[in-house]
Amino acid sequence: MSQRPPRPQLLRVQNFNVSSDGIAAGEDQTLERPFGHVDPGRMFAWAGATASWPNRTEPGGSRGLDDYLTRDFTHNIGAEIMGRNKFGPQRGPWQDHEWQGWWGDEPPFHTPVFVLTHHERPSFTLSDTTFHFVSGEPADVLARAREAADGRDVRLGGGATTIRRFLDADLVDTLHVAVSPLELGTGVRLWDSPDDLLDRFHRDVVPSPSGVTHHLYWRK
Amino acid sequence: MSQRPPRPQLLRVQNFNVSSDGIAAGEDQTLERPFGHVDPGRMFAWAGATASWPNRTEPGGSRGLDDYLTRDFTHNIGAEIMGRNKFGPQRGPWQDHEWQGWWGDEPPFHTPVFVLTHHERPSFTLSDTTFHFVSGEPADVLARAREAADGRDVRLGGGATTIRRFLDADLVDTLHVAVSPLELGTGVRLWDSPDDLLDRFHRDVVPSPSGVTHHLYWRK
Repeated sequence: MSQRPPRPQLLRVQNFNVSSDGIAAGEDQTLERPFGHVDPGRMFAWAGATASWPNRTEPGGSRGLDDYLTRDFTHNIGAEIMGRNKFGPQRGPWQDHEWQGWWGDEPPFHTPVFVLTHHERPSFTLSDTTFHFVSGEPADVLARAREAADGRDVRLGGGATTIRRFLDADLVDTLHVAVSPLELGTGVRLWDSPDDLLDRFHRDVVPSPSGVTHHLYWRK
Repeated sequence: MSQRPPRPQLLRVQNFNVSSDGIAAGEDQTLERPFGHVDPGRMFAWAGATASWPNRTEPGGSRGLDDYLTRDFTHNIGAEIMGRNKFGPQRGPWQDHEWQGWWGDEPPFHTPVFVLTHHERPSFTLSDTTFHFVSGEPADVLARAREAADGRDVRLGGGATTIRRFLDADLVDTLHVAVSPLELGTGVRLWDSPDDLLDRFHRDVVPSPSGVTHHLYWRK
């Protein structure tokens, strides 16, 4: 009998949000404003309306197309890699080890998380998420995350600068980018155009009834 | 801190295929032709092209929209309910206990499966799938499946007649029906129109680049 082929261990970008002009976050990030001048609520409204949104606190929520995207967030994911700015607004050497990131006592990751930084900091665990602080080339960081993921996939959590680094190193297998129908003008840019990736990726463009357009890429 | 609400235990129809005129299977089902006069390859081509199709034997496959649907097949599912015709072509009392269904030595369910039949037959296990043969009202069968699912969701596997019975009993929470762009004319019908369910369900209609249109329903 034919066997199912072994499943490759992928590096996946999931539920990453950009504006129609490709902006993922604003400038002037602070502790109070993780997205700088950008209001994240406008960008993430589609996800927050779904039943499977990790931060949902009330029952209910939609279970249509957008929910397929949000409920896939933890599915077969064994580790995350994130840029330092997704962890916190600090720059330079870590000063305050008491402050343990933007993600609260119950971070939504539930796996090891590798935070890219040039500055050493001891690992720590919050609930079932352990944060490791790592430097090095994308391929080396990915190798560590893959090992920690124990056969499952690795999520590349962003932000835009981190995703671009891993794209430049040709290490990304799939991307889901939700494009919101709003223009931001300035900020941290993921791309000039969603077509930028078509030399290396297949893509489905899927408009959602919620107003966002999901761009789903997988490696050629 | 706000807690995530408890997750309801859903009854879900997933990856169910019908023609543009609502036909799910042909007439004159036989051992060699589980779908009777209907060629299932034409209906299921969208799913077979995806990386996550459970019966895939070659590496590769698409990882766009259609793959989100197929990779959700086993996600948080703890049991399946299926009609007798999805198990095999026999009618009346079971004659041949040697024949163990259409699903091979490694059935793609990986959970308990409850096969609806008026005729008793002992349970048996193939790989990590156990088939139970049960009679009774849909609500009673669902209660057994829910208990077996141990907190996870229950998949309502079809066919069309079985789905209609559970819809008539108002027990279905979500449905994903892939409508293929072909007309069959006669056969086992799921609905007269995809709009039939809109009195009780929200719906997203999502055209896929593969040519099928995904209809995603969730209870109002």
